Amino acid sequence: MSITIRKIAKDLNLAVSTVSKALRDSYEISDETKQQVLKYAREHNYVPNAYAGSLKNRKSKNIAVVLPEVADTYFSNAINGIDSIATQKGYHVIVYLTHESPERELEILQELRGGRVDGVLISVSAGVAKDSEAHRELATKMPMVFFDRVCQDVEAAKVLTDDFQAAYLATTHLLDKGCKSILFLCAGMNLSIMEMRRGGFQKALEDRHQHPGDHHILITHQDESESKTMIRDFLKSHPAVDAVIGSVEKVALQVYEICQEDGILIPGQLRVIAFSNLRIAGLLSPSLSTIRQPAYDMGKAAAEILFKALGKKVKIEKEVVVLPSVLCEGKSTS
Amino acid sequence: MSITIRKIAKDLNLAVSTVSKALRDSYEISDETKQQVLKYAREHNYVPNAYAGSLKNRKSKNIAVVLPEVADTYFSNAINGIDSIATQKGYHVIVYLTHESPERELEILQELRGGRVDGVLISVSAGVAKDSEAHRELATKMPMVFFDRVCQDVEAAKVLTDDFQAAYLATTHLLDKGCKSILFLCAGMNLSIMEMRRGGFQKALEDRHQHPGDHHILITHQDESESKTMIRDFLKSHPAVDAVIGSVEKVALQVYEICQEDGILIPGQLRVIAFSNLRIAGLLSPSLSTIRQPAYDMGKAAAEILFKALGKKVKIEKEVVVLPSVLCEGKSTS
Repeated sequence: MSITIRKIAKDLNLAVSTVSKALRDSYEISDETKQQVLKYAREHNYVPNAYAGSLKNRKSKNIAVVLPEVADTYFSNAINGIDSIATQKGYHVIVYLTHESPERELEILQELRGGRVDGVLISVSAGVAKDSEAHRELATKMPMVFFDRVCQDVEAAKVLTDDFQAAYLATTHLLDKGCKSILFLCAGMNLSIMEMRRGGFQKALEDRHQHPGDHHILITHQDESESKTMIRDFLKSHPAVDAVIGSVEKVALQVYEICQEDGILIPGQLRVIAFSNLRIAGLLSPSLSTIRQPAYDMGKAAAEILFKALGKKVKIEKEVVVLPSVLCEGKSTS
Repeated sequence: MSITIRKIAKDLNLAVSTVSKALRDSYEISDETKQQVLKYAREHNYVPNAYAGSLKNRKSKNIAVVLPEVADTYFSNAINGIDSIATQKGYHVIVYLTHESPERELEILQELRGGRVDGVLISVSAGVAKDSEAHRELATKMPMVFFDRVCQDVEAAKVLTDDFQAAYLATTHLLDKGCKSILFLCAGMNLSIMEMRRGGFQKALEDRHQHPGDHHILITHQDESESKTMIRDFLKSHPAVDAVIGSVEKVALQVYEICQEDGILIPGQLRVIAFSNLRIAGLLSPSLSTIRQPAYDMGKAAAEILFKALGKKVKIEKEVVVLPSVLCEGKSTS
């Protein structure tokens, strides 16, 4: 048996509107009263009607997280960070997967305009325009925070890591180890994070007075097996290459597979470092040097910015938060 | 500029109710008409009002996926399988994470009763009762499919893998390699899948006339570092143990870390096999022997059963589908 708002009001000797507002977390009601009402509602099995509630309040108590995939450890960790905040606020997280399709991402944004969610956290697909009109429009319609992969030219709240600096560090790390010919594996050409990482790579080469012709950038294919073929062919036709920087976890693991299959020794013949949050990087053969992004904290920070706007019904601040990545040295670059 | 249902009906020379039903995917409307309406709506930027629609149709076009976590490769693959079907049907997937808390899981089920979703796919937390009343009740209220981790005593649609058989095979595989003292690492004591896996382990020992005292079962702690301490202590106090079966990915990786830290050789001193869908099991040092569950296909199959019921508004069939797991031999048991 569940209880009604009317009954809660009667039992607690409060006005029906007070109970209703307390249940909606209205700023008009004191925290003390809210706690009292919520406690009573919980104990007496109060079940809100999600849709009746939504029509009136225009609050779905859902937030959307739009992501390319969940198989990458960055995103699974970021989801956990987001979820830690959403749960605390009594919100549910709807995860929408774009599978790196800009078309699908636009369809999802179109859907979200229909009022299904109160706010959006998004990490865009490879292929989404820097100044995407659809993203800009949604950001004016509801609180929205970009994290990690952003539309660079859309003014909005953003949570980033220091991709430029991290790639710079990875490059100088390899040069310090004596590497003469580094291959930068770039996944998703037009992604904001790729541009930053590639920029850091190139700046480090420049600062160290490297001959540009000695080092390479290869833009990999999205399809796993095509990407592997491309990398393998490149390594065969450029035998001088003695180090690889994987701009995402996936391509670094492809390099590991190629080396295993073709008998290329890491780090003896090829040093490898990658942007990756793989928990078991240390268990690989050999252990993988990584640039670790603060994935959980980035998800958490993005959710915190969103809930600041949702809670107080204020306009979202267009702040840009940058959290640092960390270089973890493994045997793959030793 | 978006278009209204009325305008679509006029332009296509159809009744308003026909368009409305076509957009709701009603069984009363032919597939041909549905395609025509959907195509026109898409091209003319039709945006349904999610909540207005929901109140009338009692359809949210959301399905819930309730999971312990997303960091495990089983679940990230299963989500992709579920999403492949949901997208096709025009549904959105809401992912709810329980973080292995039965209390949180019950709160989520309570929420779901409020009409937020049209159907539920669930893989239960360790600690949820076999005959959970809350799960049984929700299954009578809306279409619901258990996958992988189920409430054994709740009659419902279920998608499983052959856990008993797979554990039986893993055990005989180790015995065939000459192992004399196997440690079965059991995570989440009361989980349905654990009971099956442990059962397969014990039956194999029995069939091979093993002395029960030679082999062990250790129930690990949920907390990662506590679990590692337990396993390390057990291995120290039972030096005869020459093989480990990890009932989940996580504990096997903990064993790898312990062996790396303590200088225990795999497979020389300890053979290791685990239930795991880790794509890079072959890149570990040494490559890990795994029992691979058909995670993607299980997610897909569970979603297909759900949508059969959602599409035709028929009662969900309480079928039990069992998909086979596969043993992939790596160097860790060679």
